[in-house]
Amino acid sequence: MLKIYGNPGSTCTRKVLMTLAETNTPSEMTVIDLAKGEHKGEAHMARQPFGRVPVLEDDGFQVFESRAICRYLNERNDGKLVPSDAKARAKMEQWISIETSEFSPPAMKFVYEYLLKRPQGQDALDAAGKALTAACAIMDAQLAKTPYFVGDEFTLADICFMPYFEYGMMTPAKDIIEKFPHVMAWWKRVSERPTWQKATGKN
Amino acid sequence: MLKIYGNPGSTCTRKVLMTLAETNTPSEMTVIDLAKGEHKGEAHMARQPFGRVPVLEDDGFQVFESRAICRYLNERNDGKLVPSDAKARAKMEQWISIETSEFSPPAMKFVYEYLLKRPQGQDALDAAGKALTAACAIMDAQLAKTPYFVGDEFTLADICFMPYFEYGMMTPAKDIIEKFPHVMAWWKRVSERPTWQKATGKN
Repeated sequence: MLKIYGNPGSTCTRKVLMTLAETNTPSEMTVIDLAKGEHKGEAHMARQPFGRVPVLEDDGFQVFESRAICRYLNERNDGKLVPSDAKARAKMEQWISIETSEFSPPAMKFVYEYLLKRPQGQDALDAAGKALTAACAIMDAQLAKTPYFVGDEFTLADICFMPYFEYGMMTPAKDIIEKFPHVMAWWKRVSERPTWQKATGKN
Repeated sequence: MLKIYGNPGSTCTRKVLMTLAETNTPSEMTVIDLAKGEHKGEAHMARQPFGRVPVLEDDGFQVFESRAICRYLNERNDGKLVPSDAKARAKMEQWISIETSEFSPPAMKFVYEYLLKRPQGQDALDAAGKALTAACAIMDAQLAKTPYFVGDEFTLADICFMPYFEYGMMTPAKDIIEKFPHVMAWWKRVSERPTWQKATGKN
């Protein structure tokens, strides 16, 4: 049985839970209690030396970093979340990099400030707002043409964006994101998937 | 002929140039002059809407984000820079994520401050120093066991770290990195590759 050491509320754990749900892979979760600091405890640091979640364990093989875990899980399960065409796969990787470098860092500034109550400073929030607007405009232009980031197929690129979207939409970042109709239509489309409801504990 | 729209001095372009050199792939470079702001000009923004370099063009197919380009190039050229074993490939992806999220952001704080003369503030530099120390300690533990990040094979994970290393070592980040002997031995090993000399215009 696959094991996940993670926390159901963490963005990175949710990417992995969504990939498990989409590939219909059985797994068991060992909850790492972030409020109690278990992620910085000796047992977890031995698995993940940066003290973060999640970690995947597959019959003795351990790997961390959520985007790496998602790629591995999809492949292990002969999943359909990575396009078979090399060019489409390159575009998937392009969008995962955009998520990692352009979308999630500014979205998380809002999450830290408003949900996790770690003050970021007004300058940082203003810069995050500008970066988020720029990223959403570029995402909107793609999603005006295709239902998912990589054409007609739901891929790991969509999954990687989802947790940051969910939490960002609970902050004033929502006012920015809502200006982009194709982004909003994509968010409705993907967040209504039964697998997302399952991954986020709503069903 | 493959085309790269990039700048030979940019970290992200260098990852791509190194992958081209390692896979022995002919290409031609259109230099985007960053000093003149060509990356924010209309022609380049049509290729890369964030106004960054590089962009790859392969017979009409365009893709950006350097780590995506490297994966694509390797595969297109039947390259040996990605392990064939799924678990080794997961580890490669883990290390690329560590590079992206844990090593390069703090290393670049030093590069911005000391090479590009964009003041970062002392608090940010102190935090970057701590993050860099933590990342190097974890990298050192791996490189004490294996010559490259993923075992005995030079992979895209090594390439992704290299440009940030090169520039970081020209700043006071060097004082941090030098405390880690296995990291330093790795840096000597990889930076002496003739392909790196070629990619960085030294040979």
